[in-house]
Amino acid sequence: MPHISQRGIQMPPSPIRKLAPLSDAAKAKGVKVYHLNIGQPDLPSPTSALDAIRNIDRTTLEYSPSDGYRFYRENLVDYYKKFNISLTPEEIIVTAGGSEAVLYAFMACLNPDDEIIVPEPAYANYMAFAISAGAIIRTIPSTMETGFALPPVEEFEKLINERTKGILICNPNNPTGYVYTPHEMEQIRQLVKKYDLYLFSDEVYREFIYNDTPYISACHLKDVEENVVLIDSVSKRYSECGIRIGALITKNRKVHDTVMKFCQARLSPPLIGQIAANASLQENGAYMQHNFDEYKSRRDFLIERLNNIPGVYSPMPQGAFYTLAKLPLDDADAFCAWCLSDFRYQGQTIFMAPASGFYVTPGLGRNEVRIAYVLNKDDLNNALIVLEKALEAYPHTHKHECGALYSEADLQRR
Amino acid sequence: MPHISQRGIQMPPSPIRKLAPLSDAAKAKGVKVYHLNIGQPDLPSPTSALDAIRNIDRTTLEYSPSDGYRFYRENLVDYYKKFNISLTPEEIIVTAGGSEAVLYAFMACLNPDDEIIVPEPAYANYMAFAISAGAIIRTIPSTMETGFALPPVEEFEKLINERTKGILICNPNNPTGYVYTPHEMEQIRQLVKKYDLYLFSDEVYREFIYNDTPYISACHLKDVEENVVLIDSVSKRYSECGIRIGALITKNRKVHDTVMKFCQARLSPPLIGQIAANASLQENGAYMQHNFDEYKSRRDFLIERLNNIPGVYSPMPQGAFYTLAKLPLDDADAFCAWCLSDFRYQGQTIFMAPASGFYVTPGLGRNEVRIAYVLNKDDLNNALIVLEKALEAYPHTHKHECGALYSEADLQRR
Repeated sequence: MPHISQRGIQMPPSPIRKLAPLSDAAKAKGVKVYHLNIGQPDLPSPTSALDAIRNIDRTTLEYSPSDGYRFYRENLVDYYKKFNISLTPEEIIVTAGGSEAVLYAFMACLNPDDEIIVPEPAYANYMAFAISAGAIIRTIPSTMETGFALPPVEEFEKLINERTKGILICNPNNPTGYVYTPHEMEQIRQLVKKYDLYLFSDEVYREFIYNDTPYISACHLKDVEENVVLIDSVSKRYSECGIRIGALITKNRKVHDTVMKFCQARLSPPLIGQIAANASLQENGAYMQHNFDEYKSRRDFLIERLNNIPGVYSPMPQGAFYTLAKLPLDDADAFCAWCLSDFRYQGQTIFMAPASGFYVTPGLGRNEVRIAYVLNKDDLNNALIVLEKALEAYPHTHKHECGALYSEADLQRR
Repeated sequence: MPHISQRGIQMPPSPIRKLAPLSDAAKAKGVKVYHLNIGQPDLPSPTSALDAIRNIDRTTLEYSPSDGYRFYRENLVDYYKKFNISLTPEEIIVTAGGSEAVLYAFMACLNPDDEIIVPEPAYANYMAFAISAGAIIRTIPSTMETGFALPPVEEFEKLINERTKGILICNPNNPTGYVYTPHEMEQIRQLVKKYDLYLFSDEVYREFIYNDTPYISACHLKDVEENVVLIDSVSKRYSECGIRIGALITKNRKVHDTVMKFCQARLSPPLIGQIAANASLQENGAYMQHNFDEYKSRRDFLIERLNNIPGVYSPMPQGAFYTLAKLPLDDADAFCAWCLSDFRYQGQTIFMAPASGFYVTPGLGRNEVRIAYVLNKDDLNNALIVLEKALEAYPHTHKHECGALYSEADLQRR
C-alpha cells in the first residue's frame, strides 16, 4: 500500500473528540453521558436564524461568491462597528467556520518551517492547522497561578528568530477563559511592530466577557493594521456551530488576495449558513443578553462547585465558556478515558477533554481538564456530582495526593 | 510587512472565477452576461431538499460528527449500491463539498514534492489543492483529436519515478466531458497495481453519462481496493452547489483514519447541507431523469451550434455538462476578457472560462475555452449568437485564421 503523508502522521487527534468512541460505547449501553468536552452550546440558535432557514426562497441552492455574499459582508461591517472596529466589505472573507479561516491564514502567510508563537494552553486545532501548512507552533506556557495571563514579553523575545512569522492569540481565550488586558494587548502590539510579525487573533468569544476587562481587539491596535489577521465565527456567538460560517478579516490586501485564491479553489462558503448568520446579526438585544447571563451564571456556579471538590482547583475564567481545572491526579487523559469506559454513578458518567492536547510542551497540563459550561445548570450540577464521585472512586494508585500509593508507572513518569 | 507564503504566490487564480470582476463591471453597466464559465447548474434543486430545509426541526444548529451524520452515511451506502459500489458507513467521510475531499485526500496521502499524474486538461482546482499540500501535479496531455481519451499508458510510465504517489482521474471528466472506457479503466487499474499508487477518482458527474460507455467507478476495480480514494459531491447531481456537501470514500483504513484527523480539526461538515443532501437521496425517478434529459438535449444543441460557427470546433462530450471548444484565435484568455470588457451585442455578452487554466503544460489550450451548458436553451441560444458575433467583431490582428494580419506580439508568441 502507498504510505500516508508525514503531516498526516504528525496530525494530532482532537483532544476534544478523540475519546468519542468511548463515549459512544457508554451511550450504547444506556449510560447517560454529560458532555463537558466540547464547546457545543446547548442554548437555542436565534429564532431569526431558524426562521430565515425555514423561509428560504431559493429554488436552486447555488454557489455563493468565494468571499461570501456581499449583503452579509455589508451587515458584518455594521456588526463590527458596534465594537469600534472599522471595516469595509472588501476586508471580510466569509469562511466555512473559524476553522477554515485559521487554515487559510496559515496557508497564505506561512511557509513550511516558518514559526508562530502561541501562548499555551491553546486551542488544540491551531496545532493541526499549523501542521497542515507545514508551519511550526512554538509555545510559551501561561500558568494557572496567574489565571493564564500573558506570559512575559521576554519569553516571546527569547523565541523570536529569523523563521518567526507571527504571533497567535485567542482572546477571550479557549481553553482558559482569560481576557487580555489593555496593557497586555499593548505589549503584543509592540512585539508585532518591533519584529514585523503577523498577528493572528481569534476573537470568536468577544460577546462573552464577564468581568470588567474591556474587549481589546487586535483590530484596535494602532500602527499594526496590516499585520493583523482576525479570525471570527458565528458558531459560539449565536449557538450555530453546525452552519459552518466564520470569517477571515484583514486590511492587508496581499494577504486578502492570497487567501482569496484558496477560497476560489474551494469555490464558496455554505449558502444556507450565510442566510442564517445574516439573519442572526439582528440579534443584539434580549437574545444576546439572555445567553450572556446564562453563561455567566453557569460559570459562577461551576467554578464555585469545582473549587469545593477536594483537590480540584480552577481559576475564575473571565470570558468564553470554558475553564481549565486541575485535578488531584497524575494523568487526566487516563482519568477521562476511565470515566467513560469504567465509571458510572447512578447510570451516568462525564466526558471531559484532557488538557494535555492543549499544550505543546510535553508534560504540561497532564493533571488538567478542559470543562465547557454548555450544559444547563441541572445537568452541570449532576455532572459535577459525577465528577466528585469519580474522583473518590478512581483507584488510589493513580492519584496525585496519595504519594505513598503511586504505581511504578506513575513514579517513573514523574 | 511580513511576506505571504510561497504556496500563496504559486496558487493559481481560478480560471473559472478570475474574470469575475470584469463580469461584475459589465453587469453594473446594465449588460446582460451569459455565464458559460461556471458549472453552476440552473436547474432547480429537488423539492425534497428544499422541503427538508424548510421543515428543519432543530432548535440548536449544532455540530455534526466530524465524518458526518451516520443516518446520511447509511443512506449513501444505499445510493452507491445502485451503482454496484459496495460500501459501509465507516468507509464514507462527509466533507464540505468535493473540494474539501480533494484537499484532505492530498493532505493525508502526499508529502511535499510527492508527485501525482493527471491527464490534462484537468479541473483547475486540483492544481490549487496540490499546491496547498506541497505536492506536484505532472500532467499528460490528452487531445481534442481523440475526444480527450486516456493518453497512452507509456506516457504515464515515462513520468513514474520514486516520487510518484498517485494517479488522479475525473470521470466523467470536467472539463472535457470524456468518459473512460472499460479498457481504459483496466489500463489505469494495472498502472495503479503495478506501481502501488493511489488512485484519486473524482466521479461527481456519474449521473450524467449520455452515450453508451458504461460507468466504471474506480471502486469497481479489482485488487486495488485499498489504493482508491473516491471523491464525490452532491453539488452537480442535485443542483446543490451551495450546500457544500461532498464525500471522501476509501476502503483504506489508514487513509480513512488520517483524513479523519483533518476532519476533526475542522470540526464538522455543514449541518443543514447534510439534511438537504440526505433528503435528495430519495430522488431517483422523475427528477433525475428530467435533469439528465435536459442536459443531454442542451449538449446536442450546443455542440451542433458550436461546430456551425466558422472556425470553432468542439468534440461531442459524453458526460458531465461541459465542453472544451477550440476557437479561431490565438489567445482565448484575451478573447474571454475582451468579451466581458469590450464586446456587447444587443446589450449582451458572454462569460467563458479560458481553457489555459485547465492545462499545466505551458502553451496548451491557449485557443480553447470551457463552456458549461448550465443555461436553458433560450439563453444558450442567445449566448451562442453573442459568441458568433464576438468572433466576427474581434480585432483581426488577434485572430488565428488571418495569418497575414498577425500582430508582432502574436507572431513572437508562435
